[in-house]
Amino acid sequence: MLKINEHYSGLKESYLFTEIGHRVARFTAEHPERSVIRMGIGDVTLPLCPAVTQAMAGAVAEMGQAATFHGYGPEQGYGFLREKICAYYADMGVTLSPEEVFVSDGAKSDLGNMLDLFAEDNRVLIPDPVYPAYVDTNRMAGRPVLYINATEENRFLPLPDGDTQGDIIYICSPNNPTGAVYDRAGLQKWVDFARERGAVIFFDAAYESFISDPTLPRSIYQIPGAADCAIEFCSLSKTAGFTGTRCGYTVVPAGLVRGGMSLNKMWLRRQTTKFNGVSYVVQRGAEAVFTPEGQTQVRANIDIYRRNAAIITEALTRLGIWHIGGVNSPYIWLKCPGGLSSWDYFDRLLTGAGIVGTPGAGFGNNGEGFFRLTAFSSTDNTRAAMKRLEDMDE
Amino acid sequence: MLKINEHYSGLKESYLFTEIGHRVARFTAEHPERSVIRMGIGDVTLPLCPAVTQAMAGAVAEMGQAATFHGYGPEQGYGFLREKICAYYADMGVTLSPEEVFVSDGAKSDLGNMLDLFAEDNRVLIPDPVYPAYVDTNRMAGRPVLYINATEENRFLPLPDGDTQGDIIYICSPNNPTGAVYDRAGLQKWVDFARERGAVIFFDAAYESFISDPTLPRSIYQIPGAADCAIEFCSLSKTAGFTGTRCGYTVVPAGLVRGGMSLNKMWLRRQTTKFNGVSYVVQRGAEAVFTPEGQTQVRANIDIYRRNAAIITEALTRLGIWHIGGVNSPYIWLKCPGGLSSWDYFDRLLTGAGIVGTPGAGFGNNGEGFFRLTAFSSTDNTRAAMKRLEDMDE
Repeated sequence: MLKINEHYSGLKESYLFTEIGHRVARFTAEHPERSVIRMGIGDVTLPLCPAVTQAMAGAVAEMGQAATFHGYGPEQGYGFLREKICAYYADMGVTLSPEEVFVSDGAKSDLGNMLDLFAEDNRVLIPDPVYPAYVDTNRMAGRPVLYINATEENRFLPLPDGDTQGDIIYICSPNNPTGAVYDRAGLQKWVDFARERGAVIFFDAAYESFISDPTLPRSIYQIPGAADCAIEFCSLSKTAGFTGTRCGYTVVPAGLVRGGMSLNKMWLRRQTTKFNGVSYVVQRGAEAVFTPEGQTQVRANIDIYRRNAAIITEALTRLGIWHIGGVNSPYIWLKCPGGLSSWDYFDRLLTGAGIVGTPGAGFGNNGEGFFRLTAFSSTDNTRAAMKRLEDMDE
Repeated sequence: MLKINEHYSGLKESYLFTEIGHRVARFTAEHPERSVIRMGIGDVTLPLCPAVTQAMAGAVAEMGQAATFHGYGPEQGYGFLREKICAYYADMGVTLSPEEVFVSDGAKSDLGNMLDLFAEDNRVLIPDPVYPAYVDTNRMAGRPVLYINATEENRFLPLPDGDTQGDIIYICSPNNPTGAVYDRAGLQKWVDFARERGAVIFFDAAYESFISDPTLPRSIYQIPGAADCAIEFCSLSKTAGFTGTRCGYTVVPAGLVRGGMSLNKMWLRRQTTKFNGVSYVVQRGAEAVFTPEGQTQVRANIDIYRRNAAIITEALTRLGIWHIGGVNSPYIWLKCPGGLSSWDYFDRLLTGAGIVGTPGAGFGNNGEGFFRLTAFSSTDNTRAAMKRLEDMDE
C-alpha cells in the first residue's frame, strides 16, 4: 500500500504573507483613496543592469543559430561562470577551485535540496527568528529542529555555549530577517564549535554584497577552519536583482568529509541525478555580473538600496525606535514602539501611515514585538514612507 | 553526531556515458584521420525556433527596464504559461486547470523531487531497461526497487499481471531508451492496476511530441481514470530544443489523493518551500512554443528528427536488423547483429563505421544485446552514418 510522506501533514500553514495580503486588501478596499507603500517582501525593484541584459540578449541570439546553439550543459554549471565565481572569492582572500562551486537556479533550491545528503535523524540547530524555509525543509523530512535564541540582548547574533547542540547548523549573515551581521570573532566561534562536534554549518550568504564594512566577513571561508565544516549558499537575487532571473551558487569544499564520504562528491551525484543545470542564457547573464563592468553596475544599484536603508535607519533614530540592521544589510529590524505586538504594529503602520512591513512574529517566537522593513522600495517611496512614519508619531 | 545519508554510498557509479567518452577518445587518438558521428546522447542539435528567441529577447529587454522588470514570480509558474499548457492539453481532449500544472526547470528535477512526497518504504516498480535516473533517485532514499521486464517478447512494453507489485510505478512512453509506445489499451491496463492497488503512476511524457499516430495516447490523462492515479512529467527539451534552456512542466491532478492528502497541495507546498520558479525570460520563451507560430516552427524541427529516424529505420530494415522505435519516437532500439553484446557492438560500430551509439546494457540487464541510436544528429550525418553502416555490413 502506498504511503505518503506523513511529515507533510505536520507542517504549519505558511500564512505570513497570505495574512499580510488579506489585511492589505481589506484596507485598500475600505480606503481606496489611500496609497500604500510596500516595504514588506524582500524583492528587488531595480531592473537588471545593462551588462547583464546585453549578455543575455547575446546568448539568446546564440541559441537561435545552429553553430552557436547550446544543448545540455554541465549540471554543476559552465566553467566560464564557475571560474568567475572563484575569482570573486579570490578578491575576498578565499581560494576555491571550480569543482567546489555549483551553479543553481537559486539558494532556496540548494538550501532545501542539500538536506538530501544527510540522514533524517540529525538534529538541526536554527536561530529564532529565521527565514521560514530552514524550518519547513527539515520538518518535511521529519528532522528534529532545535532553536537558538536570537534576542535584543545578544543583538540577534546568538553564539554557541556549553549547552548548545546540533549536527546541522544554519547561519544567515547578514541575517534575514534581522539584518544583523556576525563579525569574524563570532563566526570563528561557530566554526570552532562545528569542527569540535563534527557538525556541518549551512551558511546562507545571500546578502553578502550589502556588507560595506571591510572588517566583516562576507564569506564563511574567510574564517580559518571553515572549509572543514561549512557549506556556503549564495545567490545573485539581491546582489544583481536576479529574483526573477534565477541564478545562485553553492560552495561545497573538496575537503569537507563526513561519515567517510566527500560531501562535494555526494552533492555532485545529487545534482547530476536530480538536476540538469541552469539555462545557458541565464548563466551568461550571471557571468556578466562578475565582469568589471557588471560589478560597477550592480554596485551602483546596491548603493541605491543602501541609501534607502540609511533613510530608514535615520528616521527610526530620530523617532527613538530601537533597531538593528540596515547598515550592512537591506533589512531593518525594529522594536515595535509602545510595546505593541508585531501584528498590532503592522495594523498601526498600515492604517496610520499606509506602510506595509513584515511582522517579526512571522519569523519565530523571538520575533514577537519586532518588525522588519526592507530597503528594496524606490528611494522616493522610502522617503515618503519615512515622512509618513514621522508624521504619524508626532 | 552528524550522520550522512548512507544510501549514497550504495549507489552504483554511473559510468555509461563516461565509458563511452573514454572509448571514443581512445579511438580518435589512435585514428585521428577518421571522422566520428555521434548518435549516442539524447541531446538535440537544431537551434531554438525564431518565435522562442524573439519572445526571450523581448523578455530580456523587459527585465532591463524598471517599468517592465519582473522580480519573484509564482513558484509554480506564471499564469500566462500554465494557461497555454492547459490549452495544449485541451487539444488532446484533456481538461486541466492551471492549478494542476506546475512549471519547472525540467522533467529531471521534478521526477527526482516528486519522491519527497512519498515515504521511503514504498516499493517502486521500474521497467528494465530504463532511464537510469528513475533507479538512482529512489536508491538515494533507500527505497526498494522492483523491476518489470521489458523484452523482445513483449516488444519492450511490459504489462501488469497477477504477480505485479509496486506502489510507485514508472512508465515512460514513448520510451527512453527503447522508443516503444504504449497504445490506449496498454496504458488502460496500467491505470486500472494502479487504481485497484492505490498506487501512483509517474508518467514520463518527455517524448510525447514525437507521436504522429493519432490513435496513440500522448498524455496518460487521455486514459479514463488516470486523473485518480497518475502524475505526468513533461518537458520542452525534446519538443522545442530546450535541453540547454531548461523548462518543463508537471501535472498533479487536483483529485489525486493518497493517505488522505492531496498530492497537488503537497507538491505545491514542496515547490513553494524548496523552489523559486523558472526564470521569467525562459517562461516567456516557453509560452511562445505554445503559440500557433511556435507550434508550426517546433513541428518543423520535429519533422526533421522524424525524417532522420526514418533514415535509420529504413537502413536497419534493409540490413535485416531487428529494431523498434523511431516511428513515434526519436530513439531506435536495435538488436545487436550476430548475437554481439551491447559493448562489443559499440566497439564494432565505432571502429568499423565511426558511429557512436549507446550500449543497451547501460540501461539495465534486459538491455544487454541491444543498442540505442538517436535521431537528433543532422540529417547529413544521419545519412552518412547509415551509408557507413550499410557499407560495413556488406
